[in-house]
Amino acid sequence: MRAIFAFSIMIITKESLEHFTTQVFEKMGCSIEHAIVAASVLLKADLRGIDSHGVARLSGYVRLWEKKRINTIPQFKIEHETFTTTTLNADRALGLVSAPYGMELAIEKAKIYGCGFTSIINSNHFGIAAYHAMKALPHDMIGIAMTNASPLVAPTHSTQRMLGTNPMCYVFPAKKFQPVVVDMATSAAANGKLEIAQRSGKTIPKGWVQTKEGGETVDANALKNGGSLLPLGSSVTNGSHKGYALSSVVDIFCGVLGGANYGIWVPPFVAFLEPLTNLPGQGLGHFVGAIRVDAFRPANEFTANMDQWIESFKNAERGNPEQPIIIPGEPEYNEEQIRSKEGIPLHESVVLDLMQVAEKFGLHFNA
Amino acid sequence: MRAIFAFSIMIITKESLEHFTTQVFEKMGCSIEHAIVAASVLLKADLRGIDSHGVARLSGYVRLWEKKRINTIPQFKIEHETFTTTTLNADRALGLVSAPYGMELAIEKAKIYGCGFTSIINSNHFGIAAYHAMKALPHDMIGIAMTNASPLVAPTHSTQRMLGTNPMCYVFPAKKFQPVVVDMATSAAANGKLEIAQRSGKTIPKGWVQTKEGGETVDANALKNGGSLLPLGSSVTNGSHKGYALSSVVDIFCGVLGGANYGIWVPPFVAFLEPLTNLPGQGLGHFVGAIRVDAFRPANEFTANMDQWIESFKNAERGNPEQPIIIPGEPEYNEEQIRSKEGIPLHESVVLDLMQVAEKFGLHFNA
Repeated sequence: MRAIFAFSIMIITKESLEHFTTQVFEKMGCSIEHAIVAASVLLKADLRGIDSHGVARLSGYVRLWEKKRINTIPQFKIEHETFTTTTLNADRALGLVSAPYGMELAIEKAKIYGCGFTSIINSNHFGIAAYHAMKALPHDMIGIAMTNASPLVAPTHSTQRMLGTNPMCYVFPAKKFQPVVVDMATSAAANGKLEIAQRSGKTIPKGWVQTKEGGETVDANALKNGGSLLPLGSSVTNGSHKGYALSSVVDIFCGVLGGANYGIWVPPFVAFLEPLTNLPGQGLGHFVGAIRVDAFRPANEFTANMDQWIESFKNAERGNPEQPIIIPGEPEYNEEQIRSKEGIPLHESVVLDLMQVAEKFGLHFNA
Repeated sequence: MRAIFAFSIMIITKESLEHFTTQVFEKMGCSIEHAIVAASVLLKADLRGIDSHGVARLSGYVRLWEKKRINTIPQFKIEHETFTTTTLNADRALGLVSAPYGMELAIEKAKIYGCGFTSIINSNHFGIAAYHAMKALPHDMIGIAMTNASPLVAPTHSTQRMLGTNPMCYVFPAKKFQPVVVDMATSAAANGKLEIAQRSGKTIPKGWVQTKEGGETVDANALKNGGSLLPLGSSVTNGSHKGYALSSVVDIFCGVLGGANYGIWVPPFVAFLEPLTNLPGQGLGHFVGAIRVDAFRPANEFTANMDQWIESFKNAERGNPEQPIIIPGEPEYNEEQIRSKEGIPLHESVVLDLMQVAEKFGLHFNA
């Protein structure tokens, strides 16, 4: 008997992983300020247990940079501005850098006018949306972040990949409890979940993916074989048109509103796929925003009511006495507490990947 | 053989139904201006084919008014205001009246500052969200409308009704095509679909409702029998935590932000259920907003790209050659064209209901 799918996990401290990642971004040409921000976005994903969006993607960013699709010395340019809005041309920057900057612009406008929004165009993938939206929290603001992404999801009734997993993120400050953090792909399942099933040779539940012909499947490789991800809702009867509509909302806010690409034209994250020609916009797009809570009523009244909201949901009747009701953002917060202390577990394939990155830049990676 | 479920449909013109509905609101004490607005919101639902939210609900509003839970001569009061935000106390008005007014405030602020948002508290059910959001379209603005509602939906892992079907609505202007109108309950299925299944004695698909104990069911009466609606996503494996999270976002924006009720405390629409005591807020809440497209880039560039967006989705590969890809809002627009000309079909139970309303107020209802 042999363990076909055996693999090992290595634990690495937050500090050493962050230090290494910062060095890589510096080697790519980023300023030290940009390298620190970019690394902290990836690390936030690893700390919060969103392994698919953390350092596992570092080599992907390197390859895009090698293809000159990422500019590590961008000149950000404000293309349009009002009291509350900014259209920011990111000059092909890392989204890891342009999105936090766009969020800061939004927060500054919100301080004065009540709310602020930034449409970021000509950008690249921005990591986890929650990192950007959560920048609003220390200011007692509601944070919003969305991005469009490489097309993998088919609209209801279609077999064509037209939309990304297009996440929506909304965060709300509370008082004694942790903030409510909603950060979700608008597809039924994210690509990362498929990859886990592929690695372990398992099938996937019905409703995640359809075959190339639009048929039902439980094959974890169906996406690789020309299929497409299904929108949240999974089937016509269970409301997949709603997931399709939500993903469309994200695509329009992120792509159409400011002048980035949208739909099939969103440039792929993987460097081996070339962007389409005749693009209608520039790069991919993000939409971030901040809304001051006390633009509506005193912040301490709001956060006190948020506490009551959270408490009432925690105390909702359970279907299974052993299974607590989860508040959005709570599992990620708990994971962050653990991993900050105990270190971040990396799959050996990620470790190998990072070692290759280290070698490329003459760096040391100590796993 | 007898046709157990036979019923008849009566067709009534838009004009005569609108006239009658306006008269009813006047008889309830509304000013003529308020009566016209309230009737036009209900009619818009009937025209667009959202029969569950049109005049079928008129007697429900009457009963709430009889219970003194709706105030037809409200004094709207601005509780808080910034450049871009308003918290509007609706004084227990019909949401059919307070929401359009709140949207107008948001549009006026957006004209000057780029965007505007109104939190409406102490209100009642507002009909279809799209009516309010679509007021932004003639101004080349993106419109947003949400409301919380009587609790019917259980969070993932819970068996308790904690959230309403809490719709999210986003509308985007286009140029040669009709606007994209996303108006969706954040539950897997709306209550109206259950009622249709109940009337025809049919089962419902798995994933719409769970039993009182949290079990799967296809029984259209399961909700009536103590069960709860499931969030969009339907099951843990297919992402019901995302539908739960979206519904929470709506509840927080509509309830917590301005000081309305939220969660289990949202007052029920049906007059035979009393609101809970010790309410944390006032009435139910809406959140509406407008964002000027040209606060980001020239509106005609945006609408031209919207046209391309729409066209590319219309032309996406079909799973079935006979089944076109649907653009959000398209079926409702098409229905509105037909019903505006040919009249509105009313189920006989609705006709009987309206005849009783007519009798109560000494009016004439000609079906």
